[in-house]
Amino acid sequence: MTELLEKARLASTLATSLALCTTNQKNDALLLIANQLVEDTPFILQENKKDLEAGKQSGMGDHLLDRLQLTEERIQDMAEGVRQVATLSDPVGEILEGWDRPNGLHIEKVRVPLGVVGMIYEARPNVTVDAASLCLKTGNAVLLRGSSSAIHSNKAIVAVIHRALEKSECPVEAVQLLEDTSRETASQMFKLTEYLDVLIPRGGANLIQSVVNNASVPVLETGVGNCHIYIDESANHKMAIDIAINAKTQRPSVCNAAETILVHQKWADQHLEDLIKALQEKKVEIRADEKARQMDKDLLPATEEDWETEFSNLTVALRVVSHVDEAISHIASYGSKHSEAIISETAENVETFFNRVDAAALYHNASTRFTDGFEFGFGAEIGISTQKLHARGPMGLPALTSTKYIVRGTGQIRE
Amino acid sequence: MTELLEKARLASTLATSLALCTTNQKNDALLLIANQLVEDTPFILQENKKDLEAGKQSGMGDHLLDRLQLTEERIQDMAEGVRQVATLSDPVGEILEGWDRPNGLHIEKVRVPLGVVGMIYEARPNVTVDAASLCLKTGNAVLLRGSSSAIHSNKAIVAVIHRALEKSECPVEAVQLLEDTSRETASQMFKLTEYLDVLIPRGGANLIQSVVNNASVPVLETGVGNCHIYIDESANHKMAIDIAINAKTQRPSVCNAAETILVHQKWADQHLEDLIKALQEKKVEIRADEKARQMDKDLLPATEEDWETEFSNLTVALRVVSHVDEAISHIASYGSKHSEAIISETAENVETFFNRVDAAALYHNASTRFTDGFEFGFGAEIGISTQKLHARGPMGLPALTSTKYIVRGTGQIRE
Repeated sequence: MTELLEKARLASTLATSLALCTTNQKNDALLLIANQLVEDTPFILQENKKDLEAGKQSGMGDHLLDRLQLTEERIQDMAEGVRQVATLSDPVGEILEGWDRPNGLHIEKVRVPLGVVGMIYEARPNVTVDAASLCLKTGNAVLLRGSSSAIHSNKAIVAVIHRALEKSECPVEAVQLLEDTSRETASQMFKLTEYLDVLIPRGGANLIQSVVNNASVPVLETGVGNCHIYIDESANHKMAIDIAINAKTQRPSVCNAAETILVHQKWADQHLEDLIKALQEKKVEIRADEKARQMDKDLLPATEEDWETEFSNLTVALRVVSHVDEAISHIASYGSKHSEAIISETAENVETFFNRVDAAALYHNASTRFTDGFEFGFGAEIGISTQKLHARGPMGLPALTSTKYIVRGTGQIRE
Repeated sequence: MTELLEKARLASTLATSLALCTTNQKNDALLLIANQLVEDTPFILQENKKDLEAGKQSGMGDHLLDRLQLTEERIQDMAEGVRQVATLSDPVGEILEGWDRPNGLHIEKVRVPLGVVGMIYEARPNVTVDAASLCLKTGNAVLLRGSSSAIHSNKAIVAVIHRALEKSECPVEAVQLLEDTSRETASQMFKLTEYLDVLIPRGGANLIQSVVNNASVPVLETGVGNCHIYIDESANHKMAIDIAINAKTQRPSVCNAAETILVHQKWADQHLEDLIKALQEKKVEIRADEKARQMDKDLLPATEEDWETEFSNLTVALRVVSHVDEAISHIASYGSKHSEAIISETAENVETFFNRVDAAALYHNASTRFTDGFEFGFGAEIGISTQKLHARGPMGLPALTSTKYIVRGTGQIRE
């Protein structure tokens, strides 16, 4: 049997006993993991060094090397993250609804773990700890498939997790790491409906698309965010600029950062110059449509591709529109249904925007940067869902659960 | 542009205006459809006749011909079903949660339509009406792909629906039928993530597996039910037999019918003979394990395959077990996670069964036949989900919805 089948089967077998662990048992296990990560820091750093050296030799860029690198502080942050997961309330066992039927049946809808989560992710080794702790908390076994560039770090982290789980009352091997990081094995994992209940890809657009296009196992899609800030005619001058600057520049690499600013013509007539100045002060490169360039002919022209692009850097596309409907149409054509904001003092336009824009999160007079599990008050998140089934937007612990119906009778049969 | 692309795009374009229809507008449209179906009965029957004749010529079996056939009464039943959907409460717009954040943001989670539903189904033309009415009620556009054997009936029904929608305030072409029923087109539909938000296959196991294995569009899986009745040591004699007979024989062709009866050895010692007699009186063919055959050597032997089979007819597999754990292991190995029942007077065993068996619906002292939208009190159902993401078990109207977060601020930016 291949490593994949063996580990997936083992995870699947252990999922049942993990599902039966109490909240206290799971929290104790999480605290043991947090402590073990800190205690075994020298071992983890030593293994991480192997990945870093291999990365340097293969010409990995500084940005990726930085993501790959662990430090004492980063490991402490990881441990702190695990401790925070322990403080979150346990969704498993929650009775969501209960009702009686006229024939006397009593039906309850109860939250249960999904079973086995398949996690496919790229370089950052902290995802190994995040995924393991969130899955453990929700009673799910997890099969981790990280990238080959982080394999030593990931093996070390999972060894440390196993060491901690041995001291716990939870099944040690409910956390499994695939050491075989070949593409072929990943492709087999996509199809492993017998053992995996869900696949969660975390990483770049290519990874996510490959999973979505090829998986038979149901996928929780996270990822692409082409988000817009629409500044309406009545928008407060300072608020609009503050929000646009925040959404674009506060952390441009993340999915809830803004990529295009849409500005109503009448607001632009008065304030576009100030907006452009504020963006330029933050070193933002502006790519503008014709109307905006008529107002400032030094701006670079935007191409069709710019409207579609998640820049993830200090570039922004800028377009002047003549009506809220034009902004909504633009978002419908180019948006990725992630996070969209309207800055306006006109209640009617806000409602139109909320009703007609199809996205996971819609904002009035606030930055798109708030689409995040912590900012929503959910605590740790597994990601931000950009699909419409199961979970949409920031996914907290309940997104890692399913339900079952418990029906209690006294001999009822169907007529 | 192909018919598929054209109709999918049209459905996708109209989804937004359908999503904005009020509950009254949607209910009025449903009542218009119900009336039009009755009014245009002669036209539908005439078109249905073409399918029946083609079916006979191609050697379609009596069972399938019966499923394909429409009658005045069946059309009235379809219309009645549509009227019932109009009476159900509209999930769209429901505010599921609302809370304030310390920074003053007010967040609401609101139910919204999924967008465009792709429905792929086999012979029965009543699915055309069911799917159209459930999607319309939940504000979803729908792209219907029925089977070629029902194409005249389906075209007639959709023409009638369009005729009704023309008199309504809902967009007429939010209900689309693919006239091209080739496999190639269906395969293209599986991948149409740009326009379709979900695929729902309704039909045999092959159809469903083909969609699950090949679709990039998220799938709501329905279907296979290999359900068990476990009769525990302490089970009431008459209740156990009544429930086993009901679950096996009341409607053997459906997915919530029982396929295997597991009997505790001690109950079997006392009552197996009565159970066998009751089954045989109902013309059930029994395939039994060795222990049961030791007690009644006239029983046919069960093969490994029998434990895995959804017979969907008057055949049952029978196994004697020595402990509730053995029943649970059997169900874990062979069950399809649909509906599982324990008949017992021992509370501890019932809780063990409820905690350890992984299925959409678990029953104590009741027949598995109750796993059904109407029996659960949901009204009309789109199907019974056998997956763990999004919806599990009978799916009422909320399964055809997603959510969005509405966030209201006063200029908040992220620090």
